[in-house]
Amino acid sequence: MSVSLTLSLDAMGGDRAPDMVLKGIRIAHERHPRVRFLMHGNEAALRPVVAKDKTLAEVCEIRHTDSVVSGDEKPSQAVRRGRDSSLWRSIQAVKDGDAAGVVSAGNTGAFMAMAKLALRTLPGIDRPAIAALMPTQRGDCVMLDLGANAECDADNLVQFAIMGEVFGRTVLGLDNPNIGLLNIGTEDQKGTDALRQASAILRDSALPIRFHGFVEGDDIGKGTVDVIVTDGFTGNVALKAIEGTSKLYTSFLRRAFESSILSRLGYLLARPALNKVRMRADPRRYNGAMFLGLNGIAVKSHGGTDPLGFANAVCVAIDLISNGFNDTIRGEFMKVQRASGLNSQDLERAANG
Amino acid sequence: MSVSLTLSLDAMGGDRAPDMVLKGIRIAHERHPRVRFLMHGNEAALRPVVAKDKTLAEVCEIRHTDSVVSGDEKPSQAVRRGRDSSLWRSIQAVKDGDAAGVVSAGNTGAFMAMAKLALRTLPGIDRPAIAALMPTQRGDCVMLDLGANAECDADNLVQFAIMGEVFGRTVLGLDNPNIGLLNIGTEDQKGTDALRQASAILRDSALPIRFHGFVEGDDIGKGTVDVIVTDGFTGNVALKAIEGTSKLYTSFLRRAFESSILSRLGYLLARPALNKVRMRADPRRYNGAMFLGLNGIAVKSHGGTDPLGFANAVCVAIDLISNGFNDTIRGEFMKVQRASGLNSQDLERAANG
Repeated sequence: MSVSLTLSLDAMGGDRAPDMVLKGIRIAHERHPRVRFLMHGNEAALRPVVAKDKTLAEVCEIRHTDSVVSGDEKPSQAVRRGRDSSLWRSIQAVKDGDAAGVVSAGNTGAFMAMAKLALRTLPGIDRPAIAALMPTQRGDCVMLDLGANAECDADNLVQFAIMGEVFGRTVLGLDNPNIGLLNIGTEDQKGTDALRQASAILRDSALPIRFHGFVEGDDIGKGTVDVIVTDGFTGNVALKAIEGTSKLYTSFLRRAFESSILSRLGYLLARPALNKVRMRADPRRYNGAMFLGLNGIAVKSHGGTDPLGFANAVCVAIDLISNGFNDTIRGEFMKVQRASGLNSQDLERAANG
Repeated sequence: MSVSLTLSLDAMGGDRAPDMVLKGIRIAHERHPRVRFLMHGNEAALRPVVAKDKTLAEVCEIRHTDSVVSGDEKPSQAVRRGRDSSLWRSIQAVKDGDAAGVVSAGNTGAFMAMAKLALRTLPGIDRPAIAALMPTQRGDCVMLDLGANAECDADNLVQFAIMGEVFGRTVLGLDNPNIGLLNIGTEDQKGTDALRQASAILRDSALPIRFHGFVEGDDIGKGTVDVIVTDGFTGNVALKAIEGTSKLYTSFLRRAFESSILSRLGYLLARPALNKVRMRADPRRYNGAMFLGLNGIAVKSHGGTDPLGFANAVCVAIDLISNGFNDTIRGEFMKVQRASGLNSQDLERAANG
């Protein structure tokens, strides 16, 4: 089932751009031959490479941009000064209706700030969230927010839960995904006021959500729920703590296998199986942090990724678009409001007494 | 170098108590033959086992208690009703000067609430923190708070930093440990108000601290700093996310090694080296969450631990006592106040303008 759509790309974002982006497109093209790409970046750098490659020449349209937002630029500064940048123009192409979504491996904060400003949030959503897939003992789960909002109120968390639920159904293909709120215990009285209020709202039967209740940090890896909802501060720390632990274990294992001739031989024999583990937990498989809740799909690739990782981020964007993620979100919020006769602020007030 | 001191134990706390506790004492005794134990618990259950074992009979004194705080009892309830419990009595023995510290594998919340009430905080410390050792690529680091305080202000974080620094020097034996504040980015403007204020205070040269600045979640596993300071909510989620990730990798590896005859053979050859990794990352090695900042050493063992894990928690308590952790904390806060002519609240006000 080959999807046909146009994706906007920031060709200059990421440590090894634009080379990494161009090679990534080649890989993504094999999976999605009918997707076209609007490349925003330095034409002098892009044109010769694209011209030499028949496939790239067929699927890419180059739009020249003069500047690049650097990795260390502050979001506020990028928004003010970066209107001729590859990042801003690639987002603007989505706003203008030239593309259904945008992918960049550039500055995360600037990308989010610009995407919020240009695309605005969907009806019913106060703030967008960053979401990503995480490996668990029971397949993948999705976790949000991973850093867009350092502080969140109950209403934000409830909106994240609804977006996560739609993500579970449309992208992960689950019938009835269950949702957990990340906390420091599973009892009702645990955690902050915002968490307790959000939990009270989510238990309300008017919401079309299977709410599991509170979950703890180790429930992420266990796969206790399909969707983990948290504020952007906690989510960002948890995500990076998990990444750091994966790297720690990889380095422990490497040292173990290199520690004697027997263990080296053991490694050689077990290598095919170990490579499967590596692929299972490969951060490139999970490359693609999604900005959910905007009028347009925006996916952030890791800045240090390689062509395969970038191609995965491109495929995540294609998945979100072709599965109608945003249309489903719009419908879901209309249903919630009809079913309850309330908007989400009213629901929160109701939960507070 | 054999230390001589008396430790108070809650013999009834933990899933497999008192059997696990008694076996744990046997192991701890081999490492610290001159340490004596005040066992609080059901005499009818303890006496026969202790009487049959010459070593236990020599090093243990049994103090009968009538009740046990259950694992699911609310802390507030335990404090009200549990005054004849093994947990309360074992803490009270420290307050009465009969023991230098207390170890329990029982209800964490009740243990913390009772310890705060009975022992009170050290001068200069507003709230105690839970600390634990974490494995990193560069040896162990210590992280606090891991759940005692779901919400922390700048002053709390600064006090945790000073306690962490003293821990690094006295227990880890580091000359000049460096301290990082856990955040979602390393730039000055990142994170919450409390984090930015705490950072401003810790940069103040009047504090005898090597402050690295903000660190992120993946810096825990990297070992970027010796001491990670965070609020109890973030620390608890990060700790458990790390535990969940270790378990996830262990299960991925097990499945990989079991997936073919060759990989089974590979496992057998590499087993001695892999066992070293397992020991390196063994949660029992890291068993013993320390309640820092109280007038008396209190160490919480995992409830589900085995005798070896309980023995490690006992040894953590002995380390804290024999290295003069609390005396050093007291001295440090007097130095800070002399050096700055201010108390820590004043420092915070200064940082706010």
